Amino acid sequence: MSSAETKAARRAKFEGAFEKIRDELIEHFAGEGMPAEAIEWYRNNLNYNVPGGKLNRGMSVVDTVEILKGRALDEAEYFRAAVLGWGVELLQAYFLVADDMMDASITRRGQPCWYRVPEIGLIAINDSFMLEAAIYRLLKVHFRREAYYADLLDVFHETTYQTEMGQLVDLITAPEDKVDLSKFSLERHRTIVIYKTAYYSFYLPVACAMLVAGIPETYAVPGAPAPVRPYEVARDILLPLGEYFQIQDDFLDFAGTPAQIGKIGTDIVDNKCSWVVNTAIRLASPAQRAVLDANYGRKDAAKEAVVKALFEELDIRAVYAAYEERIVGELNTKIEEIVEVDGGLKREVFRSFLGKIYKRSK
Amino acid sequence: MSSAETKAARRAKFEGAFEKIRDELIEHFAGEGMPAEAIEWYRNNLNYNVPGGKLNRGMSVVDTVEILKGRALDEAEYFRAAVLGWGVELLQAYFLVADDMMDASITRRGQPCWYRVPEIGLIAINDSFMLEAAIYRLLKVHFRREAYYADLLDVFHETTYQTEMGQLVDLITAPEDKVDLSKFSLERHRTIVIYKTAYYSFYLPVACAMLVAGIPETYAVPGAPAPVRPYEVARDILLPLGEYFQIQDDFLDFAGTPAQIGKIGTDIVDNKCSWVVNTAIRLASPAQRAVLDANYGRKDAAKEAVVKALFEELDIRAVYAAYEERIVGELNTKIEEIVEVDGGLKREVFRSFLGKIYKRSK
Repeated sequence: MSSAETKAARRAKFEGAFEKIRDELIEHFAGEGMPAEAIEWYRNNLNYNVPGGKLNRGMSVVDTVEILKGRALDEAEYFRAAVLGWGVELLQAYFLVADDMMDASITRRGQPCWYRVPEIGLIAINDSFMLEAAIYRLLKVHFRREAYYADLLDVFHETTYQTEMGQLVDLITAPEDKVDLSKFSLERHRTIVIYKTAYYSFYLPVACAMLVAGIPETYAVPGAPAPVRPYEVARDILLPLGEYFQIQDDFLDFAGTPAQIGKIGTDIVDNKCSWVVNTAIRLASPAQRAVLDANYGRKDAAKEAVVKALFEELDIRAVYAAYEERIVGELNTKIEEIVEVDGGLKREVFRSFLGKIYKRSK
Repeated sequence: MSSAETKAARRAKFEGAFEKIRDELIEHFAGEGMPAEAIEWYRNNLNYNVPGGKLNRGMSVVDTVEILKGRALDEAEYFRAAVLGWGVELLQAYFLVADDMMDASITRRGQPCWYRVPEIGLIAINDSFMLEAAIYRLLKVHFRREAYYADLLDVFHETTYQTEMGQLVDLITAPEDKVDLSKFSLERHRTIVIYKTAYYSFYLPVACAMLVAGIPETYAVPGAPAPVRPYEVARDILLPLGEYFQIQDDFLDFAGTPAQIGKIGTDIVDNKCSWVVNTAIRLASPAQRAVLDANYGRKDAAKEAVVKALFEELDIRAVYAAYEERIVGELNTKIEEIVEVDGGLKREVFRSFLGKIYKRSK
């Protein structure tokens, strides 16, 4: 099989697990005596909002369990890992259905946002709640007997809270209709990115996989003065890695061609608290800052062009290239420092993430 | 102390626990490095939406722990029970902030609904999420070491899911702007009421109290053929009791005077799937049904008066009185059937709930 075929097959297998998971949720819902109209509604909610994305987050749970176990998973092991993967995807769907309402977005994944579908409207709020509740139903059915059940619930809860904290800070820092660059800074950008994206996109999938693979809270490493705390090690790599991923995303919104990134960047007109504008703010002279204040976040192509020209003038491309080389070097160093022992963390978990991100163009 | 003073003191003590809980949540949030503006926002969210209601649900956790232990609680015991009580109130706040948006409500507890406060708007969706996340933060801090920690999380999760199921059925059965009485029935009313209200308002507080009081999953009773399953016994009383509570609420919306219920009933004009209209549907002749179809759920005082007259013609008052005598009799029988043993359920838990509801007029 070619690499593209392998990737398509992996995705198809993961999507196959969704069908089972969805049917299991619907069967339980129907078994509670819910009317046919509500069953149909819930099925549509799940089908419309949960699959259909890139599925990188969900599939990374399965991949990471395989890497940690050092072998292919049998059917039962695969399905349990996939339940956690779809748990992460359900969590993302919960956020995205709501974020689209709060951002007044129009489309998502090439279709109208759920709240814009006729008949749905504000009921989308309750629908988003039900996507989250489905996670805990699935965890209970498939993981209730495990010694790590409470740890699993804790990591989902904490990640959910962290993401909501990040979303709050983002919403009050960069409302689409009220430009105030004095609220922006690279520190503020980091808080938003780490909390709103990195925890749920990078740390949560790996922490789930580590729990399933039986990685303990601490373990001894030969020659080391203190026991390793592998969940902290993972977090200390995955949060900066997630920040790098988002900074790259922000950079590509500005610098990527539509052919590369599959869309036209809108961060400038949307008043996004992006790494690009925050870097520009740090580098700008007072005169350049005045240009930014007057032109950023306006629904006006001419003003957008002025901002873009200023970004080029400040050589944001070079700043990004230097950032990327530095952060990748730091991440590689942290990864190399991991001492591998049987039943412990493996470097390949993190190399695999980094390899998918470094120098990606979409 | 008079009974009124006692009640006010009980409430003040419970409200005092909220101050501690809120400060603990804010301190943790600030400790995550959140900006001052976000800290202020979150504090306002908690202060505006969590206290200020009747607090019956939250205080019933504390009361039930006291009844089960058969003695007053010391300070530490009180505070832990109050954390669970405020967990129930946070859950309700999560639902109400969102319900008010979905129902386009104007006021709640005598102040504008949160989403209608200037500057809040749709950010209220994320604010509601954070109210829910706060529950699990509190449970982790105060109950992580308990053997029943996973049971506690499970009962909050299941109740949340059940409430959302009920809310979905309610939303699609009785949209305010589209009257279709063919969707209504007493069976549908029961599904909505049990799922949307009874689980979280009655079963959840008692189940929390039972866990804290150390009531086991099953226990033996002298002379009984099989072990008692006390959580099922509690549910089998509390769900019909919650249904009775809501039916009474529906009835008072129609029959209570404004002086009695502190508001003017609006269920008829709001197209509510109320016990009253569902009972009328069951009793109506084809001609009377046509009157209902033509007049229910319209923003029109003359049509509302026609519906009210029909309710009187069908003698809904007598139907309600008969229902109330029957259900109270059934509940009392179930309560009497409980066999009390040391460390087990107590009849007083349920008598206390029933006593507060029976023949209340507001």
